[in-house]
Amino acid sequence: MNIAIIAAAGAGTRMASDRPKQFLLLAGTPVIFHTLKVFEQCDSIDEVIVVLPAEESAGFLSLAGKFGVRKLARVVPGGATRADSVKRGLMAIRSATAEIVAVHDGVRPFVTVEELDATIAAAKSDGAAILVAPATDTIKQVGDGAVVKTLDRGTLRRALTPQCFRYELLREAYQNADVNDPSLTDESALVEQLGKRVSIVEGSARNIKITTAEDLAIAEAILAAD
Amino acid sequence: MNIAIIAAAGAGTRMASDRPKQFLLLAGTPVIFHTLKVFEQCDSIDEVIVVLPAEESAGFLSLAGKFGVRKLARVVPGGATRADSVKRGLMAIRSATAEIVAVHDGVRPFVTVEELDATIAAAKSDGAAILVAPATDTIKQVGDGAVVKTLDRGTLRRALTPQCFRYELLREAYQNADVNDPSLTDESALVEQLGKRVSIVEGSARNIKITTAEDLAIAEAILAAD
Repeated sequence: MNIAIIAAAGAGTRMASDRPKQFLLLAGTPVIFHTLKVFEQCDSIDEVIVVLPAEESAGFLSLAGKFGVRKLARVVPGGATRADSVKRGLMAIRSATAEIVAVHDGVRPFVTVEELDATIAAAKSDGAAILVAPATDTIKQVGDGAVVKTLDRGTLRRALTPQCFRYELLREAYQNADVNDPSLTDESALVEQLGKRVSIVEGSARNIKITTAEDLAIAEAILAAD
Repeated sequence: MNIAIIAAAGAGTRMASDRPKQFLLLAGTPVIFHTLKVFEQCDSIDEVIVVLPAEESAGFLSLAGKFGVRKLARVVPGGATRADSVKRGLMAIRSATAEIVAVHDGVRPFVTVEELDATIAAAKSDGAAILVAPATDTIKQVGDGAVVKTLDRGTLRRALTPQCFRYELLREAYQNADVNDPSLTDESALVEQLGKRVSIVEGSARNIKITTAEDLAIAEAILAAD
């Protein structure tokens, strides 16, 4: 059984709004339900666990009924950090039949079913796989107020989600993790620290993370262009 | 005398439009004239050289009159690559009194007068300085279809423009440069290759490069939020 953990516990403090960003309306529908629709449509996913701010639980469940989220297995209250929230989602997996866990940002609605399928398939084969996109900017390594060097853009990728792992491997990675370490920006880094291979799956730059008002404007533009 | 080279010779092939992206309308005004307005307002800049597709010259000059671009010194036809275009702009500088050259993308209208001032001041003091912004994504170094390592985001910056240099230093950097090398994504890299210090000036992530239809939508959103 393949299980998705949707990380959506952020308070949205970077958005000039009193609503967490995952609940802002995109073409009339809360962002997170755009995201969940992709997981509903993806045959590689059997169950979905959503990690939310504790106070959003009740409202979410009523909306989940309205939007017909059939795969929703559990709603889990989030922690203080992203890593803590994902760990809580992981601990909520009770099934001994769990095979692949796909961790995905609730505010990335533009992932496609094909990208999700491909990343899960790569994790099945290799143990761990993440979706990535090209680095579009010139990236400099810096130190002491100056450029140290220009990195070869061809060897760089931006880490997106989903990040998919064999269940036991992700459990092991989180076992000793300090979930309060702010440098822990993704699950892949934890698995890399174990010395395990994390395969990459080339994805689209459309799969943006909606964290600011400008991002929401881009998202509307992406939808309008479809 | 401090001279700006505005690189605007791109044909805009990434934009689903028959107009080069620097001429698309942003709040009713072509993007490049938003950009030029900042240089008009900046007391650190004495003259502006604009590098354009050859066929855009006449139309541009008539618009430049309309928008009152008083500092425009020359319009130069662009080359096949960005580096070639900037080099042509550089070769058009005739003044023996040239002190600092500020290279800027025509499609970055959101640079501020303060950022321009600060980058020019740093180049005066250190020889070379570029405006940068934080790397917002997790960046992975990859190879053979897998992650090699997660880079420490704190030591990474995205290179923006302006990139400012002492005139003689930039001349020297371009002297031996292969302007057709596609890996040459900015002027800073050329100066780094000489082993010279390139200082960084921390700028705003608002200073985006408008290269796609989505970027134009973001730009409208940024203007609307002001």
